[in-house]
Formats: sequence, C-alpha cells, structure tokens
Amino acid sequence: MTTFNIPKIATIADPQLQQQLQHIIDNKTKPLGALGRLETLGLQLGLIQGSTTPIIEQPQIRVFAADHGLTKHGTSAFPSSVTAQMVLNFLQGGAAINVLARQHNIELKVVDAGVATDFDSMYFTSHFERENHPQLLDYKVRHGSRDALTEPAMTDEECTLALNNGMAVAQQLTGNLLIIGEMGIGNTSAASMLLARLGELPIADCIGRGTGLDDTGLQHKQSILSQVLQRHSTALSPLAALAALGGLEIAMMVGALIQAASDRRILLIDGFIASVALLVAERLAPGVLQYAIFAHHSVEPGHSHLLKLLNAEPLLTMQMRLGEGSGAALAYPLLQSACAIINEMASFSDAGISEKTSPKSNSESQSPSKNSSEHTH
Amino acid sequence: MTTFNIPKIATIADPQLQQQLQHIIDNKTKPLGALGRLETLGLQLGLIQGSTTPIIEQPQIRVFAADHGLTKHGTSAFPSSVTAQMVLNFLQGGAAINVLARQHNIELKVVDAGVATDFDSMYFTSHFERENHPQLLDYKVRHGSRDALTEPAMTDEECTLALNNGMAVAQQLTGNLLIIGEMGIGNTSAASMLLARLGELPIADCIGRGTGLDDTGLQHKQSILSQVLQRHSTALSPLAALAALGGLEIAMMVGALIQAASDRRILLIDGFIASVALLVAERLAPGVLQYAIFAHHSVEPGHSHLLKLLNAEPLLTMQMRLGEGSGAALAYPLLQSACAIINEMASFSDAGISEKTSPKSNSESQSPSKNSSEHTH
Repeated sequence: MTTFNIPKIATIADPQLQQQLQHIIDNKTKPLGALGRLETLGLQLGLIQGSTTPIIEQPQIRVFAADHGLTKHGTSAFPSSVTAQMVLNFLQGGAAINVLARQHNIELKVVDAGVATDFDSMYFTSHFERENHPQLLDYKVRHGSRDALTEPAMTDEECTLALNNGMAVAQQLTGNLLIIGEMGIGNTSAASMLLARLGELPIADCIGRGTGLDDTGLQHKQSILSQVLQRHSTALSPLAALAALGGLEIAMMVGALIQAASDRRILLIDGFIASVALLVAERLAPGVLQYAIFAHHSVEPGHSHLLKLLNAEPLLTMQMRLGEGSGAALAYPLLQSACAIINEMASFSDAGISEKTSPKSNSESQSPSKNSSEHTH
Repeated sequence: MTTFNIPKIATIADPQLQQQLQHIIDNKTKPLGALGRLETLGLQLGLIQGSTTPIIEQPQIRVFAADHGLTKHGTSAFPSSVTAQMVLNFLQGGAAINVLARQHNIELKVVDAGVATDFDSMYFTSHFERENHPQLLDYKVRHGSRDALTEPAMTDEECTLALNNGMAVAQQLTGNLLIIGEMGIGNTSAASMLLARLGELPIADCIGRGTGLDDTGLQHKQSILSQVLQRHSTALSPLAALAALGGLEIAMMVGALIQAASDRRILLIDGFIASVALLVAERLAPGVLQYAIFAHHSVEPGHSHLLKLLNAEPLLTMQMRLGEGSGAALAYPLLQSACAIINEMASFSDAGISEKTSPKSNSESQSPSKNSSEHTH
C-alpha cells in the first residue's frame, strides 16, 4: 500500500525579520504606506524567503491535466476530448498560458495526471513525435477519474499515488516560485464539491450559472453534484473527500503545493480550482497557506466564498475564468515589482533627502495629519 | 498673447474593425469571454491603433513636476522643497517610478513644469552636473504657481503656455503609449478643486483624510479649498477653472494628453491627479477619453467619484496613493498581455481542435448552458 507522508511546513513568522523589512519599506522615498499592497506583498515575499532582499528566480508553471468520470452525466458543456486537445495546444505553444508564460519568461510544463486520451498512440503520431515534447510530464494514474456518482472518483491507492506524484513534480522544481494551473473538463464540478464539503457550504453557493446557464441547466448540475455529495456523505476528512469528490489533477496539485511549501517556495495561486487545491493542501498540511499569494479573483461564484474562507484577497480582478494558471501568470509581474521596490528603491538617506524635510522627520508630518491624502503629493 | 489651439481628436469607433477584433478574440482556444477584461482591453487597444494586431512600442513616461502657491496656507503636510528633492531622486534613479520603469523597459523623463527650486544653481553643482541629465526637460513657466487664495493659480498666459508646453512634450514622443506621472507638493488640493468644480461635486467629496488626518486637519484643508473655490466662483469653463484652481504640472499634463490622443497614442492613466488632468482634457477636447486606459484605483477618496463620473473601471486596486505614474507603470504589463493574447494565441483552427468538439460548434455548448461556469474547464 502506497502511503502519503506529509512533510513539515515551516512557519514564515519571524518578528525580527518582519521588523527589518518594515523598516526598509518605510524608509523608501515615498509617504508611509503609499505603495499599498505592493508593500505588504514585498513583506510577505521577504518572510517566505527569510530575506530582506526577496528575489524571484526561475519561476515555473506546471499545468496539471486530467479527465473526470462524472462528466458522463452531462455536468459539463464540453466533451472530455477537449482536455487532450488543449494539452496538445499547450505543447504547441498556442494556449493563453503559453502566451503569458513566454511574456514573463516563466518555464511551462504540462503534467498528464490522468487524461483519458492515450497521447502516444492517438495523437503524437499524427501531430508530432512525443520525444520532441519534454514539456509533457507523464504521471498518468489512470485514464480519467472514476464516476463519482457510483464510486469514489479515486481509490485511496490512486489518490495517494496522485498526491505523491504531485510531490515528485514539485521536488524537481529548480526555481523558487510555483504556479499551478489545470486543464480538465469537469474539474470545476469536482472543485465545487470539495469546497462544499470542506467549507461546509451549500453546494448551491459553490457552483455557478456563469452568464448563460439557465435554471434547468443549473438545476441539473446541482442535482447531480448533490447526489454525489450524498453518495459520499461519510467522506469528511480532507483525504477522504479528495478521493471521493476530487480528481487526479486536483490531487496532484495538492501534493505539489504541499511539497513546494515545505521547500519554502512562493505559491502563486491561480483561480477557483487552484484555490480549492490550496484549501485541501492547507487542511492536510497546516501552514501551506502562508506561502500562498492569490493572483486573481475568478468570476466562478464559488471562488468568492473560498477566498472569504481563506481570508484571502487576490491581486487582480479581471473577470477571468480560464484556468490553466493564466490569472497567476498575469499577476506575476506584480511580484517582481514588489521585490524590485525593496531591492532597488532609494531610502531617504540614499537619496540625500534631508531629514529636515523628509516625511519621516518633518515636524508637520509628525502631526496626526501625517497620513493625509496630501501625501499623495 | 499665446493661444491654445485644440487639435482634432479622432473617434476610435470602427464597427468593422471591432467586429474583426471580436471575431479574432472569440476564436482563440478558450471559452467565449473567459479572459474577461484582458479581452476588452485588447479590443480597445486594437481600436485605438486601428489594427487587428495591436502592439505597444517604445512606451514612455513623463513625470511633470511643479510647486503650488497655495501650500503656504498649510494645506500640505510636506514642505514644497520635497518636490525638488524628489525630482533629483527621479534623476538619480531611486524613486518608485524609476524602479518600475526599469522593470518594464519604459523610457522615463522628468519635466520641470514649474518647480519652485532653481535646479541649476541650487542642486546641480553639488549633486551632479545638469548636462549629465538629459532626463530633465526644462519647461518651467514660473517658480511654482500663484497663491490661488488671492489670485488665479496661473494667469491665462501662464496656463496657455503650460498647455502648449505639454503638447510640445507629447509631440516629441517616439512611442505609441504615454504614461503621465506627477510630482508636486500640493497638487492633490489643486486636483480636488478641479474635480469639485468640473464635476459639480461638494469639495468634501473630493478631498480625503487618508488614514490619519484628524477632524481639525481635514476641516482646515476643506475650509481653505472652499475659500479658493468661492474666490474663483466664476471660473466655470474648463480653461478658466484650470487656470484659477489648477497647477502648472496639471496644465502640462492636460496639454500632453490632448496632443497624445490627437496622435492616437494609448494613454495609460495613473491615479487621482492624472485622472483629473484627463477630465480637464476631455472637457477641452472631447474624445480624449477614448484613448485612456485607467491603470489603478487610488485610495484618494476623490478618485472614486471621478472614476464614476468618467464611467471608468481601473485595472488594478492596490491601495496605492503615490503618484509619479507608479500605478500606471505597475499595470503596464497587463496591456502587453492583452496585445500578446491577440497576436500570439492560437485559434481553434490553428490548434487543430476539431470543429466537432470545439466549444464554438459542440452541440451541447450551443445550448443555453454555453456560458456555464463549467467552461472554466
């Protein structure tokens, strides 16, 4: 029997370092706090890295792909075959995440966690040879998860294997920042059920109609997912819930997040599904959340509930709902900016701005008006 | 008498081009609309450039600096001398805007629109030689604006000269995207009064206490600004209001925005003061607004009212209030992403995704469920 050994997650709390970082930030040539979230972001990055000079090196994206047995019940508008087609699109460099990864020089690899399609025989001969694609990592546990309406989506063995596979992927990372993306027709349903179960929320709050699902369509989806939750009503622990309701790519993402946090990597979290993976990871290995930076607020309605649950405020709100890690890649330069502000911006003394007139010591600015709006200049 | 000739602003509306751009965006390998604001942003950039392949070339930041006569009445927590000190900080490369401009390879120059300090005699001999700083453009109209409590901040002649200077700066631009930043102790007060006047809003809605201004401090500021507005109660036209209540850097920004829009450049708008300059520009030269992309939502309370007035929704909400163009530089890579998505992302046919299973033609996705949340995968 394969076992899943949860590694230790270190705390990032370090009052002395935090004070040093805050001092550095407060002495930059700007009014106190004027860079807002860029300052708190820099502080968190410094704490994650245990450094007063945080820096991002070799950022990496791993897109985890798998299919879902539940889709046979008509919960998804897209057929499962789109999962494999999008994997090929990733390998050809044409998807949104490819474009954004190239823009920001982030290494991108795709992980087959359990795509229903057999790439070797079905696609690579016609499209291109597989050996030309070291970008595809083969961790296929099975051809799609099981039908969760009749059995757990994964056996305990399969779920453990997927978790360990995710940890293995993270262990191979060379950089200090990880973006996990996903592609899997049906994985929003799995994520919604995991959120409902672990967040103890009504399933109606965890699924969405988007802009077009009519009442009938929404009701059908909700009905199926409610039946699945009922079928697995005793799967209450994070691990049991993950196996019963989750998916192979989600389990791999959970494993990757836990391992990467254990290695003190920055976790740049994409949208709804990545956030659900983080929720499961945090429940399994408390402390993972400290390493997470939430990139964007998805329009997927469940994401709002989840962010509230995790007390998280994403950097971007761009009305996106694509997955693939696209929201995280889009937010990535903000993290680079936060580091650059700490490392490159002049302090009052660097700039030769006299103490007499600097906002830090000017008598007027020591008055209660020191944070007035006038400080925007 | 110098005159201010308002150039013609072309409409960006082009139904045929808009349809072409929308078709391109909708055929990318993603569910319809899944990239949210990145899609509408790309559409706007395409319309501004009159192209189905929008691209940003040689982006440029101009930081306009000036002092304000009104500050003698204690409306600002910082002394005027900080304006000149920050200009030197810009020239030395140590300010936040320098860091962000370097990160994104945006050319940065500083424009002396009316700083009270004489740089040549006072600073350059001690700090460094002026000839080493082609980064400083000298358009000083006078040493700070006049005291608006007793006379217009600028005479008509001075205001016109500043507007024309701004246009001259924009005419020299080599790139197709302009960020206007500012540095000027007291310019938030000037911007607040312009918003109150042109937006017909109570001054109380246009000024802020930030996080620290106590009731007394806020009351003093509001009292002074109310007196100034009363003193210039007949300055109702955009030009008269600008001269009476504005500032030299704000007038230059207005001129630069009008000229740049006339040349069909993308205007990436920073925070409160840049947005007020845009408001004045739009009132003087209707149509400028079409070229504007709002980068971030400042914590300056007046900004919310102004954004509502302009029906604008900024890209970022980072709790920033620094000015200098910093919010715009931070948002800049999102514009690059929007262009890259249009130019580089594969269409369904490019990717060889069969029509049968693509979201565009799959029978299930033609049902009302086509925009369901499940489309996030």
